[in-house]
Amino acid sequence: MSSGITDVPGVRVAHVTVGGGDVRTGVTCVLPRPDDLLARPVTAAAHVVNGYGKPLGLAQVAELGELETPVLLTSTLSVGAAHEGVVRHLLEQHPRLGRPGTVNPVVLECNDGRLNDLRALAVRPGHAAEAVRLAASQPDGHPVQEGAVGAGHGMVAFGWKGGIGTCSTAVDDGSWRATLGCLVLTNMGRPEDLRVDGRPVSAWPPDAPPLPPALTDTVAGSVVVLLATDAPLDARQLGRLARRAQNGLARTGVPTDHGSGEFVLAFSTVAPQPRRDDRWLRPWFAAVADVVEEAVLRSLRAAVTTTGRDGVTAYRCPAV
Amino acid sequence: MSSGITDVPGVRVAHVTVGGGDVRTGVTCVLPRPDDLLARPVTAAAHVVNGYGKPLGLAQVAELGELETPVLLTSTLSVGAAHEGVVRHLLEQHPRLGRPGTVNPVVLECNDGRLNDLRALAVRPGHAAEAVRLAASQPDGHPVQEGAVGAGHGMVAFGWKGGIGTCSTAVDDGSWRATLGCLVLTNMGRPEDLRVDGRPVSAWPPDAPPLPPALTDTVAGSVVVLLATDAPLDARQLGRLARRAQNGLARTGVPTDHGSGEFVLAFSTVAPQPRRDDRWLRPWFAAVADVVEEAVLRSLRAAVTTTGRDGVTAYRCPAV
Amino acid sequence: MSSGITDVPGVRVAHVTVGGGDVRTGVTCVLPRPDDLLARPVTAAAHVVNGYGKPLGLAQVAELGELETPVLLTSTLSVGAAHEGVVRHLLEQHPRLGRPGTVNPVVLECNDGRLNDLRALAVRPGHAAEAVRLAASQPDGHPVQEGAVGAGHGMVAFGWKGGIGTCSTAVDDGSWRATLGCLVLTNMGRPEDLRVDGRPVSAWPPDAPPLPPALTDTVAGSVVVLLATDAPLDARQLGRLARRAQNGLARTGVPTDHGSGEFVLAFSTVAPQPRRDDRWLRPWFAAVADVVEEAVLRSLRAAVTTTGRDGVTAYRCPAV
Amino acid sequence: MSSGITDVPGVRVAHVTVGGGDVRTGVTCVLPRPDDLLARPVTAAAHVVNGYGKPLGLAQVAELGELETPVLLTSTLSVGAAHEGVVRHLLEQHPRLGRPGTVNPVVLECNDGRLNDLRALAVRPGHAAEAVRLAASQPDGHPVQEGAVGAGHGMVAFGWKGGIGTCSTAVDDGSWRATLGCLVLTNMGRPEDLRVDGRPVSAWPPDAPPLPPALTDTVAGSVVVLLATDAPLDARQLGRLARRAQNGLARTGVPTDHGSGEFVLAFSTVAPQPRRDDRWLRPWFAAVADVVEEAVLRSLRAAVTTTGRDGVTAYRCPAV
Repeated sequence: MSSGITDVPGVRVAHVTVGGGDVRTGVTCVLPRPDDLLARPVTAAAHVVNGYGKPLGLAQVAELGELETPVLLTSTLSVGAAHEGVVRHLLEQHPRLGRPGTVNPVVLECNDGRLNDLRALAVRPGHAAEAVRLAASQPDGHPVQEGAVGAGHGMVAFGWKGGIGTCSTAVDDGSWRATLGCLVLTNMGRPEDLRVDGRPVSAWPPDAPPLPPALTDTVAGSVVVLLATDAPLDARQLGRLARRAQNGLARTGVPTDHGSGEFVLAFSTVAPQPRRDDRWLRPWFAAVADVVEEAVLRSLRAAVTTTGRDGVTAYRCPAV
Repeated sequence: MSSGITDVPGVRVAHVTVGGGDVRTGVTCVLPRPDDLLARPVTAAAHVVNGYGKPLGLAQVAELGELETPVLLTSTLSVGAAHEGVVRHLLEQHPRLGRPGTVNPVVLECNDGRLNDLRALAVRPGHAAEAVRLAASQPDGHPVQEGAVGAGHGMVAFGWKGGIGTCSTAVDDGSWRATLGCLVLTNMGRPEDLRVDGRPVSAWPPDAPPLPPALTDTVAGSVVVLLATDAPLDARQLGRLARRAQNGLARTGVPTDHGSGEFVLAFSTVAPQPRRDDRWLRPWFAAVADVVEEAVLRSLRAAVTTTGRDGVTAYRCPAV
Repeated sequence: MSSGITDVPGVRVAHVTVGGGDVRTGVTCVLPRPDDLLARPVTAAAHVVNGYGKPLGLAQVAELGELETPVLLTSTLSVGAAHEGVVRHLLEQHPRLGRPGTVNPVVLECNDGRLNDLRALAVRPGHAAEAVRLAASQPDGHPVQEGAVGAGHGMVAFGWKGGIGTCSTAVDDGSWRATLGCLVLTNMGRPEDLRVDGRPVSAWPPDAPPLPPALTDTVAGSVVVLLATDAPLDARQLGRLARRAQNGLARTGVPTDHGSGEFVLAFSTVAPQPRRDDRWLRPWFAAVADVVEEAVLRSLRAAVTTTGRDGVTAYRCPAV
Repeated sequence: MSSGITDVPGVRVAHVTVGGGDVRTGVTCVLPRPDDLLARPVTAAAHVVNGYGKPLGLAQVAELGELETPVLLTSTLSVGAAHEGVVRHLLEQHPRLGRPGTVNPVVLECNDGRLNDLRALAVRPGHAAEAVRLAASQPDGHPVQEGAVGAGHGMVAFGWKGGIGTCSTAVDDGSWRATLGCLVLTNMGRPEDLRVDGRPVSAWPPDAPPLPPALTDTVAGSVVVLLATDAPLDARQLGRLARRAQNGLARTGVPTDHGSGEFVLAFSTVAPQPRRDDRWLRPWFAAVADVVEEAVLRSLRAAVTTTGRDGVTAYRCPAV
């Protein structure tokens, strides 16, 4: 496992963390390629594991097999603000946009309301636009900050502090050698669900901090999984990859709970090359489960203990 | 055919029309029931005919079979603003919302950029909140204004002025007698596509106004179809109704063009009652095609000639 | 409109008609390409309009975007027999098949039980194998017999004799000029549903034969639509074509009734060529509605009055 | 965990094992309820994890939310034979069937061709009919034989002998206490994929038998998962359960490989009772992963070492 989703050439990630008072939230931007996506979209596919969520933009991705904007991750009630931020940014960049062409912003969310004051609607359009600009300004391969940053600021996973996790791996299918990267936003599960190396955590360290009741049992939650590659897959093949993400989530114990919106978006940064027989996708399928599992665990490892609204503290998980 | 979707008891519709300068846009709110939808959602299902669009909220409707907010229709780049307007309105109404429960606003859009200056982002969150408040304040059965109002202000259908159309019909399936209502937002098709009473319009009136080239051939377009009923259908059955809407669109000549996002949302205002064998749905299926066809034609009939940005004029269709 | 689906280079169609006593049934084979499909499958996609039917093989087509066998059309209770016939034929042709590789036969059906004695299970595996062999032995461009032949033998459409209909059209999208072919098996609708040139048939000829009650109102029915092209579309694009077939059906008045299983299968006989932006698909989308409408009407025009089990007569429709 | 899927009141399971020479195959029948399913179908939903398979009957289950026949499991090339067997059995039982009503048999399959001579097409319609009759003749709660029986006769899982596995659990969601049963047909995975208690098997016993190369790496494979309950869930809710089966498969290491058709069918034996808010489904979702994981492991535990065609031996897995 290598460092992160930015190991896929072209992919950039930037965070804008928003805090202060009872606010623990933010925006994360994943830019698939640093050039003009409206003119040259990337190939993409989406998969819904559990549709209890508020994604924006996935219908058009499914229809056209394309992603034409950066992907924004944010807090559940801030989807509208993130949409407007991306739109304003793109209107600035593209003087012909809106004459009368339109654009399909993709915004994915989790509910960070256990640590964050959702009612403050603290993420503003400017935060989203700033995240896009920051991402665009980064050099190739710039490492991704993980844990309680950007959209991950207020997220809680398995009762512990969750947030952003990322990793990548090289896949060699015999013809192509390319990279598969993953970035997750984790905000799901109860302490008893967590599995490390596939096993339930039977014993927490003796000095493990007390888990606040507000974080240990709730119907709220969600997880977002982004998969990126520079292998020349088409939209149908990316859809097959996306449907394997659940395997990786399940290994970490994600229970796909009722209220846990679980969405997967997979994209390729290079043009598809038709190739007979998907049999060569086998190592890709196996790699998807691996990178998703690892990214979820890294989101826990990287997260720092965070105290949020009403003094609720989400601790760094002592078992990963 | 009766007057409109508000013939279904409980349904309210309100428009906020936004104009001035190069702006021809607005928001339309369809409120399924005047009481607290967050506490008592209505049963619902969605169907995507052509996914080239930017709907918000449909993933959760599909997963849960429920609609927990009013439905907002608006201009394509204003989905974010409408989302924030609904959210702000609901936060005011529900002091516990966001602690940490969230909500799933449903926003559907068409591209009114042929008459409207999309770049102005003229629809603001306040317009959406106002549309919701207006709808909630209406009496039962209040008639729906059609044509170039609300979200229909700047829409163009078959090269002519389109917008909001609505109608309803009574359906008696032998056991239940209930109402099926439809509201459409029309913004699709070229002049040569239009069919009235099923036939292509072979001859326009001699004094028909000239069709501006900007309106006669474009890849832009879309149509939104809402179906409402007070029959006790469950989400699966509403989905079956929604999939028949394409039959009504096709009769009017809607070509389901590449860039024409076509989305259907069906809801019932009463609790589902399990009933063996869908055979009794037959008159409902036939009625769906009828109300959709009629609502599309009414959207043309009711529309008034409108001059928009850069002096482009969309004329009232002389053939309906 | 040209003659039929065999205008698409490579496509062959053959019928085996099965009759005698109370039996009016058969098998129709559509062979996408005369060479070894197991080694070189064609690109394909399927769409379900109304899932009340018994198709075999569509799950794998959806997953892989490929069709690796001829397509068999037959009577509703004969899906198993047709499957076994194709399997036996392929085992003969491919000595390595089953060691341990398997194959995905595609069989689609309608219920011809209004004229045919379903309980006789008259279609045997040998009939299906014979249809495949016959199709394979035909020269390129061989015309397709329409009406009450093969799988169409016992079908009833709009209360009149239905069955096989086919047509094709040339499509020029600016870059590619290719053929779009369609073949339908019609077995749906009531007399009052039929639309010719888009209009309901308000008056039948004075000497129109009496419609047997058994054929004028029943929940039974179904329609199968096959679309074939030699344009280099990929599976996602073929899926977009398949979803437009409902537009053509609706123009002829097909009500997508409760019990009417309506399935669409689209395939391309040439390898996909990636091409940016689906905008060029627009003439293809329009052509799909046209060929489907025409093929349905041709299935009526070509059908001959047929008397079936218990002396029930389905007359040739006098209005087409 | 209790004994098996027949702990759900009404459910019966019977096997017909077919062998001799190079044949190692069979049929398994799962009867949801011992009464007339055509007149009183059970509520049902299906989910496709990986569509590389040849299921029959799932389109209608998805459309109507109903299952109207016993479910047959069998060998991949025997879907047609099983279909005909069920149809012949039902024609005998229902003198009005086919006049002109039809029926939707559900047949699911895996490829047992590594141990079984697929080319023999050894499963005949009579075997399927016999399995249905055997199931119908069993008393309530009759235990299920597991392992290398019926459809499980020739299946191979993780390189070891697989086949039929089953278990059940009681679920108490606060309002209802009911049973969730699971039956799997396992035929997927390589030795290195297997996870017991969530962990990869790092060391096989020193006396573990040698794994035949024919069984350790192949693109073939598949898994069928049936879920049964006597909780009054509707079709949408059963679909949500079905989509959680992948979590249980993933815990055992099932990689959802390219050629591994993975299909889930869930049914309830009692009439649905509408109930507000799916939140109470949470224990059901967790239970699905548990029963699927356990049933997969039991399919290995119960399987006996079996030598098949060409002398290939699949050993009982020493690690479970």
